[in-house]
Amino acid sequence: MTATQDSFLALCRAALGPQHVLTDAADKAPYLTDWRKRYTGEALAVLRPGTTEEVAEAVHACHARQIAVVPQGGNTGLCGGATPVAGQDSVVISLQRLNRIRQVDPLNNTITVEAGVVLQHLQEVAREHGRLFPLSLAAEGSCTIGGNLSTNAGGTAVLRYGNSRELCLGLEVVTPSGETWHGLRGLRKDNTGYDLRDLFIGAEGTLGIITAAVMKLFPLPRASVTALAAVQSPRAALALLAIAQSHAGAMLTGFELMSALSMTLVTRHYPQLRYPFADIHPQLVLMELSDSESEDHARGIFETLMTNAFEAGVVADAVVAESVQQSRDFWNLREHIPLAQVEDGKNIKHDIAVPVSRVADFIETTDALLQNAFPGARMVTFGHLGDGNLHYNVSPPEGVDHDAFLANQEQVNRIVHDSVRSHNGSISAEHGLGQLKREEIRHYKSEVELRMMRAIKGALDPLGLMNPGKVV
Amino acid sequence: MTATQDSFLALCRAALGPQHVLTDAADKAPYLTDWRKRYTGEALAVLRPGTTEEVAEAVHACHARQIAVVPQGGNTGLCGGATPVAGQDSVVISLQRLNRIRQVDPLNNTITVEAGVVLQHLQEVAREHGRLFPLSLAAEGSCTIGGNLSTNAGGTAVLRYGNSRELCLGLEVVTPSGETWHGLRGLRKDNTGYDLRDLFIGAEGTLGIITAAVMKLFPLPRASVTALAAVQSPRAALALLAIAQSHAGAMLTGFELMSALSMTLVTRHYPQLRYPFADIHPQLVLMELSDSESEDHARGIFETLMTNAFEAGVVADAVVAESVQQSRDFWNLREHIPLAQVEDGKNIKHDIAVPVSRVADFIETTDALLQNAFPGARMVTFGHLGDGNLHYNVSPPEGVDHDAFLANQEQVNRIVHDSVRSHNGSISAEHGLGQLKREEIRHYKSEVELRMMRAIKGALDPLGLMNPGKVV
Repeated sequence: MTATQDSFLALCRAALGPQHVLTDAADKAPYLTDWRKRYTGEALAVLRPGTTEEVAEAVHACHARQIAVVPQGGNTGLCGGATPVAGQDSVVISLQRLNRIRQVDPLNNTITVEAGVVLQHLQEVAREHGRLFPLSLAAEGSCTIGGNLSTNAGGTAVLRYGNSRELCLGLEVVTPSGETWHGLRGLRKDNTGYDLRDLFIGAEGTLGIITAAVMKLFPLPRASVTALAAVQSPRAALALLAIAQSHAGAMLTGFELMSALSMTLVTRHYPQLRYPFADIHPQLVLMELSDSESEDHARGIFETLMTNAFEAGVVADAVVAESVQQSRDFWNLREHIPLAQVEDGKNIKHDIAVPVSRVADFIETTDALLQNAFPGARMVTFGHLGDGNLHYNVSPPEGVDHDAFLANQEQVNRIVHDSVRSHNGSISAEHGLGQLKREEIRHYKSEVELRMMRAIKGALDPLGLMNPGKVV
Repeated sequence: MTATQDSFLALCRAALGPQHVLTDAADKAPYLTDWRKRYTGEALAVLRPGTTEEVAEAVHACHARQIAVVPQGGNTGLCGGATPVAGQDSVVISLQRLNRIRQVDPLNNTITVEAGVVLQHLQEVAREHGRLFPLSLAAEGSCTIGGNLSTNAGGTAVLRYGNSRELCLGLEVVTPSGETWHGLRGLRKDNTGYDLRDLFIGAEGTLGIITAAVMKLFPLPRASVTALAAVQSPRAALALLAIAQSHAGAMLTGFELMSALSMTLVTRHYPQLRYPFADIHPQLVLMELSDSESEDHARGIFETLMTNAFEAGVVADAVVAESVQQSRDFWNLREHIPLAQVEDGKNIKHDIAVPVSRVADFIETTDALLQNAFPGARMVTFGHLGDGNLHYNVSPPEGVDHDAFLANQEQVNRIVHDSVRSHNGSISAEHGLGQLKREEIRHYKSEVELRMMRAIKGALDPLGLMNPGKVV
């Protein structure tokens, strides 16, 4: 350890308290590997500040000594964005101790929270105040709102409420030099200069550290009702979406696609789940309506739209949930797809988005390209159809060794991502770039766009200390 | 004229056609003064490119010669953001000829339009495709979508659909050096790096020129119904808002406040308008519900929520419109407030926002401060209460000369804007900064924020050629 490092750690211990400066290998370990264990990095120390002032002090100390900073929330990211890069001289700053709810303002429909607040806790506090915080995703029990904002997390309610960016009104940020920007505005309208807020959102900690945020709340719906519809194809699912939007408007809060293979895997590996149809259909659509009137009213809307869909020949079969329990059963089928995939063995995952109108084209084209290159490849396709966001996962042909098939990852990625590009889509819809897609994105963004991104990085973080090796 | 200027104009004439390079004083005049005639500037020429390629060529030529560029849409801005600064050696680039609808994608609920498309035309094209484009504001007959995006325009439907920023999915931009960024993505989810889109939105042409955009569309509601409610105070109006949001959820698309003085002026100067109550009430609220079912259903919702509001003692009197005509009559009262103010004489205008929960506090506090400084001052307060956005206009006491009163503008602004700050608000909610508030904002933004804004400006426009003298 150099003298500079020594004096740096002494300063951190004085500022944060010695118990919040982890230097022991065993103490640091959980922060140095992502939860899927794909990335492991090194760090001089893990710092656990408890207040924004302490974050600023720590970052200021790093800046003065040119020590790189890796911000980390719940460490549930899927692209290695919160894991230090191997061999870098850096510190991890964990935001988990910044976990206070600073203010709930039901009349303004806002909540002010610190970055380390766990998403599920935020949802619960909102509910206690008779409000909905709609962001919802698989990791909600451990992910933090700071991480959600830094990756602009999506989830299951984007169709109606937008992604993390659209749910945020204001931010508090510690800049790369250790200053604090107090931008915690709870305003619906504010046109006074450049949109710094949205620049920090989705920047994955490469421009500064989000320490707190003002998030939007919504009136709690009086009822949520779910239905499952069996359709012949992704194209029919799109026709159903148009019918549903026309009849339900903003009440339509969920519209998920699940392919036959997804349901085959789920019913095979989780036979205890209640699958409501006699057969596996080519595609299932899971729909959710949220209603400010009543359950009966929501069922009435479902009835109208399903009648229309049957008459148009769009839907082959459908079940509207009769109870809260049955609604949960339907969501369970959806949520067990990734787990059933784990049971089935390894596969090559993609988190892609295309314009909603091109989802069916994308699936048909890409399936054909992959079948051509890898005859028998099994595509497990599911996701947020209402947002054009698919989890398009490629499993090996039946009987082929999964590990051997994974050797084709680069070729499979190229086929899928090239197809995404030709459908005007995105190769990372809701997970970000992190380390995983930092190189990959250079294939797909223009030099003009990459240059602007680098110019912004250079302007706000001229020493390049914030989360190096990620995004740009 | 210098030789450089000569060769520049020759190049522009070759690129755009001579008829689209205006150098004659009379031809240039309409582009050099804002429509409220508060600002007049100078320009070497007004360029009227017809395509994105021509815009890029013109900007490239300016960049090579360090000629400043002032982008202009419909020239309806309220802060002088599209008028060149006096004495600058610049050109105006008018986007009005970029007025093509490039694509309508009803299934993706998007429309791709060029910057010069007039807002009302965009609304009409959307409607022809059975879709709603919800952005709506007073200047919609002549403002352009490029200008709306550059100022992040708000209007009357922000409560439900968001402002221009939230309605935009992708942009095409000509950068200050004359390159083109092709960011016309029609995606609901795309987490692949820094949010350049939202940086250009609201930048008022100081970072580049928006040449086209992908905008969101929505299912056309089956019915829109309007109601007027009389309440005792802004505080009661807020209580009504909470009740309305609880019962109507996302159906509530408009919630406007109109003070007694606003209605006194409207009924005095426009006696032909149908005012539905016998008396002038302390405050009126105009509410609009948009319904994907039917008019009857919307009326039922109004009935429920008004019953609740009466029982809670929140509403003194209320009328639900019986016809489309009556809905229009109610909106007419709201829209005639600014016109009635013109009839009444000059006043000092403010476009402010505070958290919704603090609107009543803001009005009470600021009214008292102004009464103290200017006894008898008459505040004409109205606006988008659902967004916390008020047009808070200060008229002289009865009998006081309007021009003489306007001499107090700076002192009045300081009182109002200081009060906005102490209520955590914004001094420009929906009109932007332009020239008008460029100095004023320096009182109210921190040095940290101003420095980040300047760093971004320097990074993307290092020669400082884009719309100088505006925003930063």
